[in-house]
Amino acid sequence: MTADATYPVEPWRLRETTLDVDALAQSESLFALSNGHIGLRGNLDEGEPHGTPGTYLNSFFEIRPLPYAEAGYGYPEEGQTLVDVTNGKILRLLVEDEPFDVRYGELEHHERTLDFRAGTLTRTLQWRSPAGRAVAVTSTRLVSLAQRGVSAVEYVVEAVDEFVRVTVQSELVANEDQPETSKDPRAAALLEKPLMPVSHDCDGERAVLIHHTRLSELTMAAAMDHDVEVPGRVETHTECWEDLARTTVVCGLRPGQKLRIVKYLAYGWSSLRSRPALHDQVAGALTGARYIGWQGLLDAQREYLDDFWANADVEVEGDPEIQQAVRFGLFHVLQASARAERRAIAGKGLTGTGYDGHAFWDTEGFVLPVLTYTHPHAAADALRWRASTIDPARARAAELDLAGASFPWRTIRGQECSAYWPAGTAAWHVNADIALAFERYRVVTGDQSLEADGGLEVLVDTARLWVSLGHHDRHGRWHLDGVTGPDEYTAVVRDNVFTNLVAAENLRIAAAACGRHPERARALGVTTEETASWRDAADAVHVPVDEGLGVHQQCEGFTTLREWDFGENTSYPLLLHESYVRLYPAQVIKQADLVLAMHWQSHAFTPEQKARNVDYYEPRMVRDSSLSASTQAVLCADVGHLELAHDYAYEAALIDLRNLHDNTRDGLHMASLAGAWTALVAGFGGLRDDAGVLELDPHLPEQITRLRFRLRWRGFRLTIDADHEHVVYRLLPRDGEDEGRLTIRHAGTDLELDTATPTTVRLHARLPSSPEPRQPPGRRPVRRLR
Amino acid sequence: MTADATYPVEPWRLRETTLDVDALAQSESLFALSNGHIGLRGNLDEGEPHGTPGTYLNSFFEIRPLPYAEAGYGYPEEGQTLVDVTNGKILRLLVEDEPFDVRYGELEHHERTLDFRAGTLTRTLQWRSPAGRAVAVTSTRLVSLAQRGVSAVEYVVEAVDEFVRVTVQSELVANEDQPETSKDPRAAALLEKPLMPVSHDCDGERAVLIHHTRLSELTMAAAMDHDVEVPGRVETHTECWEDLARTTVVCGLRPGQKLRIVKYLAYGWSSLRSRPALHDQVAGALTGARYIGWQGLLDAQREYLDDFWANADVEVEGDPEIQQAVRFGLFHVLQASARAERRAIAGKGLTGTGYDGHAFWDTEGFVLPVLTYTHPHAAADALRWRASTIDPARARAAELDLAGASFPWRTIRGQECSAYWPAGTAAWHVNADIALAFERYRVVTGDQSLEADGGLEVLVDTARLWVSLGHHDRHGRWHLDGVTGPDEYTAVVRDNVFTNLVAAENLRIAAAACGRHPERARALGVTTEETASWRDAADAVHVPVDEGLGVHQQCEGFTTLREWDFGENTSYPLLLHESYVRLYPAQVIKQADLVLAMHWQSHAFTPEQKARNVDYYEPRMVRDSSLSASTQAVLCADVGHLELAHDYAYEAALIDLRNLHDNTRDGLHMASLAGAWTALVAGFGGLRDDAGVLELDPHLPEQITRLRFRLRWRGFRLTIDADHEHVVYRLLPRDGEDEGRLTIRHAGTDLELDTATPTTVRLHARLPSSPEPRQPPGRRPVRRLR
Repeated sequence: MTADATYPVEPWRLRETTLDVDALAQSESLFALSNGHIGLRGNLDEGEPHGTPGTYLNSFFEIRPLPYAEAGYGYPEEGQTLVDVTNGKILRLLVEDEPFDVRYGELEHHERTLDFRAGTLTRTLQWRSPAGRAVAVTSTRLVSLAQRGVSAVEYVVEAVDEFVRVTVQSELVANEDQPETSKDPRAAALLEKPLMPVSHDCDGERAVLIHHTRLSELTMAAAMDHDVEVPGRVETHTECWEDLARTTVVCGLRPGQKLRIVKYLAYGWSSLRSRPALHDQVAGALTGARYIGWQGLLDAQREYLDDFWANADVEVEGDPEIQQAVRFGLFHVLQASARAERRAIAGKGLTGTGYDGHAFWDTEGFVLPVLTYTHPHAAADALRWRASTIDPARARAAELDLAGASFPWRTIRGQECSAYWPAGTAAWHVNADIALAFERYRVVTGDQSLEADGGLEVLVDTARLWVSLGHHDRHGRWHLDGVTGPDEYTAVVRDNVFTNLVAAENLRIAAAACGRHPERARALGVTTEETASWRDAADAVHVPVDEGLGVHQQCEGFTTLREWDFGENTSYPLLLHESYVRLYPAQVIKQADLVLAMHWQSHAFTPEQKARNVDYYEPRMVRDSSLSASTQAVLCADVGHLELAHDYAYEAALIDLRNLHDNTRDGLHMASLAGAWTALVAGFGGLRDDAGVLELDPHLPEQITRLRFRLRWRGFRLTIDADHEHVVYRLLPRDGEDEGRLTIRHAGTDLELDTATPTTVRLHARLPSSPEPRQPPGRRPVRRLR
Repeated sequence: MTADATYPVEPWRLRETTLDVDALAQSESLFALSNGHIGLRGNLDEGEPHGTPGTYLNSFFEIRPLPYAEAGYGYPEEGQTLVDVTNGKILRLLVEDEPFDVRYGELEHHERTLDFRAGTLTRTLQWRSPAGRAVAVTSTRLVSLAQRGVSAVEYVVEAVDEFVRVTVQSELVANEDQPETSKDPRAAALLEKPLMPVSHDCDGERAVLIHHTRLSELTMAAAMDHDVEVPGRVETHTECWEDLARTTVVCGLRPGQKLRIVKYLAYGWSSLRSRPALHDQVAGALTGARYIGWQGLLDAQREYLDDFWANADVEVEGDPEIQQAVRFGLFHVLQASARAERRAIAGKGLTGTGYDGHAFWDTEGFVLPVLTYTHPHAAADALRWRASTIDPARARAAELDLAGASFPWRTIRGQECSAYWPAGTAAWHVNADIALAFERYRVVTGDQSLEADGGLEVLVDTARLWVSLGHHDRHGRWHLDGVTGPDEYTAVVRDNVFTNLVAAENLRIAAAACGRHPERARALGVTTEETASWRDAADAVHVPVDEGLGVHQQCEGFTTLREWDFGENTSYPLLLHESYVRLYPAQVIKQADLVLAMHWQSHAFTPEQKARNVDYYEPRMVRDSSLSASTQAVLCADVGHLELAHDYAYEAALIDLRNLHDNTRDGLHMASLAGAWTALVAGFGGLRDDAGVLELDPHLPEQITRLRFRLRWRGFRLTIDADHEHVVYRLLPRDGEDEGRLTIRHAGTDLELDTATPTTVRLHARLPSSPEPRQPPGRRPVRRLR
């Protein structure tokens, strides 16, 4: 856990006041910069010490074999793993002959700041070498949101109290050494020296290294160029080898004099384009970056972010920690997606190699809802990426003797990379999660184009998958057997309610989409008989209920499984201490499952059912997944446990800032960071959209005195401003229009909003129908000060 | 499939009339010799060509890492795999300068005969070298049933039509090259050069090689000595190196003259004993073998087998193929177990490396029932082996947070080696299978000593395992969830009937055993409260029934799963062509499961239930396991489908002779070979013992005109002699007694047998209540001529 003193609570930035060398891996994740295309972990400029060095390009991966001691038909034989590419962040400093290293000499000051509005990571430090010479260094790093292939660092060294000769070695380093791989299955399999040199060249202060991967056969280019400013004489020269390019700058500084280097970095990769094409691409990007210049990059960065925050900011009065955390989360979600442009948004974004850099259902299930309401073009890009992977998804379905398409549980490029089918392939719900994300995008934005642009194929082929997976029993009920829902501690079950409901929704969405696009549907071979069969299955879907207990069953029979025996010393996460063979048949739940169904398919449950279900499932959910707390926040708020919801919102938001899952070192938990927004907006704001209309119903916990957030809905911009007494809805007209009206549903009742005047509604206290439920031993949410 | 012409149907031997070089791997398994301690595949004397060279010592294994692309808690990290040890079978022949190789020159005659009464493999051949010189060779090989560490070969070369100079190189070869590993998950992971040389020495015609394994740290010694007889001059000399010892014999033969070499082989291994001790052990064994001599070894072999057949033979009039096959099977079952002596009886015996040489539930479930009735001391030895592995079984249970002991799904030495838990650890029934085997041994033999000698611990600890695995629901029913029954195509289910019934039986057996041994039970911490809880769980066990269909459910909900879609081109075994994610939730069954429950727990089902269940499950069982046909034979006979039962009996018996599973190359299917006995004796003889009494009820299919078999029961020897009209029971008094009486149950009625006179009972035709059921497409049993 990170001490608060190290990271003071500030609304618009994350500032680290002292350097904790032992926690570098975590801070490298927190301070990662990315634009969704390039990702730089927050490694120190001088490269060492480090937790995990990391420079990533979205979807630049290597193939690794997936071994099985006992193989089975349909097991993927090749995995994809994100590669640590050529590191351009490195600027080594020598003070006289002494290499600057925070572990030697005296670090008199060290501060790093991630600025959510500037989009920069700034570091200021003062260091006294073992020989007693002091320098002040200020470095500012950015990964450009405006120029996709560009990153830059401004590096300033100042002599403090006497003349010093300083040398800066600015480098590109390929095939960095990696720390030893952890045994935690959630960590990555790090590859040794994945990059084969293709070419290297340098000229002036400019250098280009080009490398190629062995098995995935991808080529990447990394280039750097420099502007050097210093009063007085300076010498620079640049050398390069296969895996290293180095520009060396030497000068003398009198006290107060500064050496300023702006390092421009450009990256590009391709599976198709030639070495010369890539070479020219990065050279062109460098030229473009130098043309706009450092200040130009800073200005463009801020402009991009100003626009983002105008549509996405959430203001939380009364809880400054959540205020900071939700902005931290939104900033990283934006970084993961802004310029991903038809590449995956990975579970860790580009902040680390956890989960091998794979994208999961996290993307469509947790990240895209936020982007859809706040930054919809990034959501559209991510959905276009998913649609672009339909060929491997169809091949996978065919391999499994299924119709349609079966999207992968985890992947970088679209191929299934899950080596454990009970918590991979069997988690078919990923297909419905994708379909629902397409539909949400259409409903929320009003943009129909995506459906015509690959979306319909996804909807049709996922519907076909479901029909081939499910079956009607002799009483006419439609079942999905042998499936794994979100809860990975209860796998390969009958009639998982979450899966059944989202599958049914998938079928209805697909049928409706075919109705909207009859010709395209016909071209896909869809007949009215087929769409009728989809609706029929959806209407006949079985939803198991325990009538005796009056609760839904997470899956058939769930409520009659044995209760988990929580010993006094239960260690979490259970998956590292207990076997699946014991976990699966017990009433112990890794993460929100039935509870998630009540969020995503809110309309399928009555308020009474929700309340009873929350009370039943809360004591059985151990939250060993980072995908749980935000959903629990939403449902606890829904049923009136507002204080508990606040705790869960806090846990979702602070997951990485406080390293609550003890693996922030492997990268940030994008879904949980996005979930912080969801916890606030869907939890305390009451946002729902599963009935196709915008529903809101704000209720704040005691400590949060005011919650203000923004949404986009069919071109409108809507601000929701709630306190404990009232909510004020402000509607901005669509672009190019002067006025407009929108009917939303407030607390279950239609409410017409008008751009002319804000609408104020008085709120009524929401009271829970039962006492606050308990959690499993040791799993109360992380305590806020109540 | 092996052509009948190659293997003529003969009652007491397996004879191969011509050599099929392409089918060598299969014939090597068929012609394997073993005494349960040493196993020699039927490789040609001259070593090449071969399918798979194989020389095995029971439980001499190497450790291999078990890799997981996605690891999980409790997954075994180390596997055990049978090692191909130093090959002493090799006798290479040179005719003039021409090495004898069946692929060159002209093989004018080649015949091999496995004699079930002599216990020898004899080979006669006549070969004309490419240069035109002809020799006749006769070799006879045995692995001594009387002397556990000894094997021997008599090798005779005769000049045929002109003088030839012959050279014989008799060798010990360590670290033989192995053929490439198959991708079939049921094949073994063959290790390269697993043996590290420790010492080698030779003297006269004797040589000893000692080797050590790297990881399992086992030491083995192989030794050879020779007697050489030839008219005229002969030169011999012996050389040795780390991995090779060679005795070379050179002589000249005129037509009709013979060179006769008797090669004595001795093997020993230990995890504890020193190199000198092992060296002396094999030297001593060699000396003992030479002392008794070749003829002495032959005589002792026949004597051992005469005794075996007197108690074990099954005579089948009217079906000579089954007659031969059941004796072939019994012979190999004996070979796998005779001198195993507290080592495992592997699924393949010592005939090949299939399944890595592991022992499964096959041992207790299919092999031991046969041995218990025919060769009980071998059954007792196997059970003592199992009891000796209780420490790793307890450790495994503790690792899984369970009480008692959890015996491994597959192992050589007692540690769990299954790398796929849904069809390994979750198949908890292996524990009950073991407990039931102890109880069967006690009930059938009347020998109580085994229970006192480790058996009680097994019963108590398996009972404790079940109680910690199961739970009572709120209605008081006792459930076992997340278990896998025998059917590996429907895994990790609720309330598998087979598992529930055998677990309940395990609990009752354990409670009763504690009653018989109160002091020992107390020493194990068993209280009367604990035994009461065992009986309570057993009595409350849930047995799911589909009331609408009037059939038992293989597991909860089974009859409402989707039906498997058997396409026209369904390929078997399904596991090589279909994914588990599809197989598990469908009504497709790999092997007898509910049907096996009706055999092992016959008393838990009414005749009407059995008939309905057989009709329901027959069309859904694909028999992709070799453990299925024999059980289907038993139940089809039980419900009156006698012709179908005959087909299944044929399939079980001929599995390897006709290579019906297309993997006889990897070793023989011991459980199916044992199952041939069971199909005849329990199927057509009606043997049951699950109620604690000897039940018989013979009914023969049309073609089998007479069935005569022998059983031991509490010291009595009983011969059952049935035709279509009558059965004659003949009782022999116990050893040391002159007369005796035994009450058995015939066709459900008590019948007292007397040693004084045979008892003849008239039989009534057994008619099925429904037409013969169909099987899945392409899975009708292999057709006999009807």
